[in-house]
Amino acid sequence: MQQLGDKLIKWRRDFHQYPETGFLEMRTASIVASILDELGFQLKMGKEVMSEADCMGKPTEEETKKHYQWAQKNGAIGDYLHLFSEGYTGIVATLDTGKKGSVIAFRFDMDALDILESNSNEHFPRNEEFSSKVHGKMHACGHDSHTAMGLGLATLLIENKDQLKGKIKLIFQPAEEGTRGAKAMAAANVVEDVDYFVATHIGVGVPHKQFVAANSGFLATSKLDISYTGKAAHAGGSPEQGKNALLAAAASVLSLHGISRHSGGATRINVGQLEAGAGRNIIANHASMKVETRGETSEINEYVKEQVTSIVSGAATMYQVEHKIKTVGEALSCKCSLDLAGILHQCAEASPDIEKSRLEDNTPGGSEDATYFMNEVQKNGGKATYCVFGTELAAGHHNEKFDIKEDTLLPAVNILFQSAKVIMEQ
Amino acid sequence: MQQLGDKLIKWRRDFHQYPETGFLEMRTASIVASILDELGFQLKMGKEVMSEADCMGKPTEEETKKHYQWAQKNGAIGDYLHLFSEGYTGIVATLDTGKKGSVIAFRFDMDALDILESNSNEHFPRNEEFSSKVHGKMHACGHDSHTAMGLGLATLLIENKDQLKGKIKLIFQPAEEGTRGAKAMAAANVVEDVDYFVATHIGVGVPHKQFVAANSGFLATSKLDISYTGKAAHAGGSPEQGKNALLAAAASVLSLHGISRHSGGATRINVGQLEAGAGRNIIANHASMKVETRGETSEINEYVKEQVTSIVSGAATMYQVEHKIKTVGEALSCKCSLDLAGILHQCAEASPDIEKSRLEDNTPGGSEDATYFMNEVQKNGGKATYCVFGTELAAGHHNEKFDIKEDTLLPAVNILFQSAKVIMEQ
Amino acid sequence: MQQLGDKLIKWRRDFHQYPETGFLEMRTASIVASILDELGFQLKMGKEVMSEADCMGKPTEEETKKHYQWAQKNGAIGDYLHLFSEGYTGIVATLDTGKKGSVIAFRFDMDALDILESNSNEHFPRNEEFSSKVHGKMHACGHDSHTAMGLGLATLLIENKDQLKGKIKLIFQPAEEGTRGAKAMAAANVVEDVDYFVATHIGVGVPHKQFVAANSGFLATSKLDISYTGKAAHAGGSPEQGKNALLAAAASVLSLHGISRHSGGATRINVGQLEAGAGRNIIANHASMKVETRGETSEINEYVKEQVTSIVSGAATMYQVEHKIKTVGEALSCKCSLDLAGILHQCAEASPDIEKSRLEDNTPGGSEDATYFMNEVQKNGGKATYCVFGTELAAGHHNEKFDIKEDTLLPAVNILFQSAKVIMEQ
Amino acid sequence: MQQLGDKLIKWRRDFHQYPETGFLEMRTASIVASILDELGFQLKMGKEVMSEADCMGKPTEEETKKHYQWAQKNGAIGDYLHLFSEGYTGIVATLDTGKKGSVIAFRFDMDALDILESNSNEHFPRNEEFSSKVHGKMHACGHDSHTAMGLGLATLLIENKDQLKGKIKLIFQPAEEGTRGAKAMAAANVVEDVDYFVATHIGVGVPHKQFVAANSGFLATSKLDISYTGKAAHAGGSPEQGKNALLAAAASVLSLHGISRHSGGATRINVGQLEAGAGRNIIANHASMKVETRGETSEINEYVKEQVTSIVSGAATMYQVEHKIKTVGEALSCKCSLDLAGILHQCAEASPDIEKSRLEDNTPGGSEDATYFMNEVQKNGGKATYCVFGTELAAGHHNEKFDIKEDTLLPAVNILFQSAKVIMEQ
Repeated sequence: MQQLGDKLIKWRRDFHQYPETGFLEMRTASIVASILDELGFQLKMGKEVMSEADCMGKPTEEETKKHYQWAQKNGAIGDYLHLFSEGYTGIVATLDTGKKGSVIAFRFDMDALDILESNSNEHFPRNEEFSSKVHGKMHACGHDSHTAMGLGLATLLIENKDQLKGKIKLIFQPAEEGTRGAKAMAAANVVEDVDYFVATHIGVGVPHKQFVAANSGFLATSKLDISYTGKAAHAGGSPEQGKNALLAAAASVLSLHGISRHSGGATRINVGQLEAGAGRNIIANHASMKVETRGETSEINEYVKEQVTSIVSGAATMYQVEHKIKTVGEALSCKCSLDLAGILHQCAEASPDIEKSRLEDNTPGGSEDATYFMNEVQKNGGKATYCVFGTELAAGHHNEKFDIKEDTLLPAVNILFQSAKVIMEQ
Repeated sequence: MQQLGDKLIKWRRDFHQYPETGFLEMRTASIVASILDELGFQLKMGKEVMSEADCMGKPTEEETKKHYQWAQKNGAIGDYLHLFSEGYTGIVATLDTGKKGSVIAFRFDMDALDILESNSNEHFPRNEEFSSKVHGKMHACGHDSHTAMGLGLATLLIENKDQLKGKIKLIFQPAEEGTRGAKAMAAANVVEDVDYFVATHIGVGVPHKQFVAANSGFLATSKLDISYTGKAAHAGGSPEQGKNALLAAAASVLSLHGISRHSGGATRINVGQLEAGAGRNIIANHASMKVETRGETSEINEYVKEQVTSIVSGAATMYQVEHKIKTVGEALSCKCSLDLAGILHQCAEASPDIEKSRLEDNTPGGSEDATYFMNEVQKNGGKATYCVFGTELAAGHHNEKFDIKEDTLLPAVNILFQSAKVIMEQ
Repeated sequence: MQQLGDKLIKWRRDFHQYPETGFLEMRTASIVASILDELGFQLKMGKEVMSEADCMGKPTEEETKKHYQWAQKNGAIGDYLHLFSEGYTGIVATLDTGKKGSVIAFRFDMDALDILESNSNEHFPRNEEFSSKVHGKMHACGHDSHTAMGLGLATLLIENKDQLKGKIKLIFQPAEEGTRGAKAMAAANVVEDVDYFVATHIGVGVPHKQFVAANSGFLATSKLDISYTGKAAHAGGSPEQGKNALLAAAASVLSLHGISRHSGGATRINVGQLEAGAGRNIIANHASMKVETRGETSEINEYVKEQVTSIVSGAATMYQVEHKIKTVGEALSCKCSLDLAGILHQCAEASPDIEKSRLEDNTPGGSEDATYFMNEVQKNGGKATYCVFGTELAAGHHNEKFDIKEDTLLPAVNILFQSAKVIMEQ
Repeated sequence: MQQLGDKLIKWRRDFHQYPETGFLEMRTASIVASILDELGFQLKMGKEVMSEADCMGKPTEEETKKHYQWAQKNGAIGDYLHLFSEGYTGIVATLDTGKKGSVIAFRFDMDALDILESNSNEHFPRNEEFSSKVHGKMHACGHDSHTAMGLGLATLLIENKDQLKGKIKLIFQPAEEGTRGAKAMAAANVVEDVDYFVATHIGVGVPHKQFVAANSGFLATSKLDISYTGKAAHAGGSPEQGKNALLAAAASVLSLHGISRHSGGATRINVGQLEAGAGRNIIANHASMKVETRGETSEINEYVKEQVTSIVSGAATMYQVEHKIKTVGEALSCKCSLDLAGILHQCAEASPDIEKSRLEDNTPGGSEDATYFMNEVQKNGGKATYCVFGTELAAGHHNEKFDIKEDTLLPAVNILFQSAKVIMEQ
């Protein structure tokens, strides 16, 4: 067991040094595929497990090619790398025990963030020399650990294959940040046959050695890139010839923030970024905004999104400019299946490494696109939950000093494995 | 001549006591028609000289009926009143000399304002006991004098018929206030055959015993009634079910005032009145605005109006409400024909009652719908001007203490008559 | 007992015929005072029990005088009417048993609404000939019943005085509509000595023969009258001389609706009414808005109100106009004391007339200023609850066809009386 | 004379190859100073002729230092370069004839633009191999020619010193683009003693071989950098903790564009650029805008600027953020002295190289900060004019293909010289 613990840390530190952002997890995926293949899993990868049309906020072809070259030079496994060259970096690894039984799936996400990692004396990865080798990119949300945990669980499953029945699917998802990747995998039907689905996260405010088996407090969300295109004109000489995209954007901003509250639950709307215009004395002919909506339920988020559509289109009419709304990320709300969560809760309580387990904690806050898998599974009559392994954080998620306690990893993998065995018996 | 002077004052004071606002000048028109008929003019009236479709801002059928009853009881001439019962109160009176010659037209407006006349000790109409007998209505812009001048000119023309040739048309126009009536008469082709057109006004800043033969400084204008209809909802219990007309109006207001300046000349935009909503705790389901646009030329006003249309319609889309834009008044810009104005200028200089005559004064300011006649005449190759007879004003136009000097009337009529004789010879 | 039932209906129908709106409940109060005085309660009235400075949204002196004259002619009791002539219509009636014990208070509100009562064939008050005799005013929220219930409870208490101990206070509150009257009574310390406080309402969605002992779902709220004063100018001739109050209002409206959501709980903001400007061609020199804010807690409502203050004041600066914000109504959130509610719950369950009692129902929705009393009592260590007597409604609250089932009244009074007896023993 | 023509072209092409933007004209100024010094002019330079406090939109110290190093390596004249090291690159060169007489001043501007010069086959500077050697900077407004003309005039003046009397001042101004440099020189009193002032420009729409002696059609203008600083917060987790700078900017934009028209003459307002926010899911804590105002007169521009100040400050209050307004450029309106212009007009008409001269052309359009000198001279009782030497343009000003006909330069210098001689005799 100590050996697996060591492996988990080795994997995690390797991924940490080579952070890859959404839809560019080529090196990571090549390594994951190589290990799982060797362990004996059946692999489906790339467009087999991702619907092209449902990928949101994917980098440009040029950025993708450029990253492919980077991966080639930075330790990617050649035999697998080419499978991910277009940026469809999802993997579904299946272990079919051959014995009759349920289908159980676990989701692990692999992507990093556009954050410059801290160089502080107190930063553990720096001191242990496994800091990010990529300037401006960092695993600051723990997905390096998640990927390692997925490989750890795969290892345990293979080692104990005889004890298992039914099928187990390990889903390695790209682009969870910005809630961009899960929808494409769900749309490719990778959880169509799944009876039990478990997504996991490390940290997120749960204390070290604690566990939460069901976290339903996710807000549904949409990430929208909105742009206006007008017509430039000299602001002194012929202002009436302009079509003012900056004014359309400003009018939108005020109305967007004024979208009505919803009596059914919490909503959020934010125009987080706005860039418009080309010069002081020119009527601005372009404007672009980064917007996000949230809702306590998917329906409420949909309500907010519909208002956004009306407002953005109406403002275009007002100022006689063209508009575009591009959905670059999206996630649903969810309700965890408490009977499934109960199994994880019991396994956690049985674990010597967990001091406190809670069945449920639904404090609302962020958003997660694992909800696409969860909703899909539940729609088909299956059960789904989202569990959290507490850890001590050096700094909050998305912070340049983010770090976890590595002794969280092995117990987490064990609990997932134990749970899988119990679920199988349902 | 003294006799005509007395008549002018008698007429003016009669009209002053019975002020009638736009499209309701029934009593006035019945008296005008009666006098002109008796003098021997050929009369065309009502819908013969007014295009129904082009009447703007006409009162409701109910208001029109009610006023008809009022007119019946307040001195209207029964034989003619019924011709104006639907509110089409325009009259075109033609004197055909039977001799070959040009067609000359003069325009006089007849309508009063919704203003409560002053009861001050210093107010001449009060002291001379010819104040308005209608609470809240008043001739505060001199149109009572204009109508009297038209009747005076008619009298002189008939008395001197032998000296004349060609045809003379006297146009008595309703609803100049709010620039609502002229378009309907121009659209009925009443100036189609006119070679020379003269519109007149008294006062407007020109000093007593002075004259301006050409005033081209009018801004084109549109008067728009704009409304939004949404859906009410309880602001506490179900705000998301509302469609907020008040927000649509507020968004419109800001964007309307932000319509771009025009490099071609001055513009104006004003939302002068806004009323919206039904209660503090209700999402407002209606909003209405009184708006006006202006432009140094008709084209520039048209530009502003087009922006208004886009903005109002776009804001409706933004807030998912219905909108209406109703044009309730409109006027064009104009350029006076200086050769025609020159004739009036000379006649004024020859008058012993005028101390100073100017050919032209184009200071921009207000708007006038006589411009519809002027543009139409000029389009057909004719000449048109707008002249002003100065007078001493007790208070500015549209003020409750507005009053003119009555000794302005007879000289004005004489100058118009003399001008007609000279124009005839062109 | 049948006799009391008859009285309740008689009182209720009398009040229903003479509806009086907030701070004008002079006739109502005179009758209430007369009856309570006769029963033997100690009375405090008018400014004794109302802090002048804390009365919100009080009618003008002129309206108050005019209503006083109306009350004189419409059945007010002369001996008491003069006490309420200035519109301070609150009454606190105390029954001191002389025996040691707790102080228990019940709150009843007395005011009607500006609603024109239905004349429909199906409207019970019309058929039974007790419709409102005041055009445009109506008891459409059940406060006529509440007042009757207060008198009924008073009657039972006096009849059973021997069984009681401690003190009982009956609070008859003016101006609950618009949440205007309770703060003034709370500020006059009328519940300073109260150990147990019970507010009641009839209807509000609770079915007939059902009871809810604790309703904590009230949103804190502020009702604000906001106005801007600028400077008029001619929109064509000198627009730059205006100070545009309408623009200040429009800018405020958009920003007000854009006040940020609060992560601590629900918020509401509504500009329900806006009136601005004096004419189409005049830069608007005044604007007034009716606004309300709400928050899931008093703190959250306070947050919203602070944003309103900044926005309204900032918009005044933007447009160089003056502004005023007047608080014309306000209410807090509350948390019912469940131990006290438990007593009412038990008494309701024991009542043969109640088919179903619930301890608690906190569905959020409207607002109530009884919360001022509740917070005050709890702050001093007392207990407070807000209970609801279900009834069958002919139409929703504030609807012109609103009506209750009169057989709800007697059981309600009995439950309150029984509860008082149990509470006394605590 | 041919020799001077060659020199003009040589100078112009040299400056063209080494374009320097506002307050960085170090190489240019060092060459100008060197030549004028050698010719025998008395020189005042740098802070002697520029008020530090009145420099607007000056680059940072770092940018200035960096450019100094560039100038050292790119042909600056060492003996003079250090005088301009801090970016105060203005020069006033005086020729005192020793004879009694008037003081005449000529203004030449020296700065280039941030424009990438065209590499087209048809671009004359490319074909003649004198294109800009600085990527992204270009003399695209003719100031290279102006500087050369100043040196040419200096040469003629010295060569003909015996024919002259009084004093002649040649003002070489930095940073005319963005209207940033003249105010600082005027504030340093460099035209305090000037009786006659002449500013010149090449091109600007006047055809080849034509001349305009008086151009008064400049709009007064202010260039403003406006920024808001708020407080960031997570848009999902705690939006109420943010202070939203982006919303403050959006509200400002709408209100700024809605600043009222002015009855006294044309106005302009433009928010040409807006950048705000740091990320989609963060409440934006900063926003910056590039704004310009214009007015037909300095007073009207001042009116617009005052509204800007109110609006920007009010929006800061609305959203509880901090704001800054920095004036980074400014120019006045002007009225040319037609008697002075008449002299230039006559000299141009006398020139064999000019086919058509106009005394005056006041078509409004751009802005110029030579107006600071002009207003200052006229305030002290002197005369001032702004003249234009027509030329054939390859493309409009500020276009990457902008170019002039070099045969315009020598005739221009001659006309200025002849004018100087005539003016001297006044």
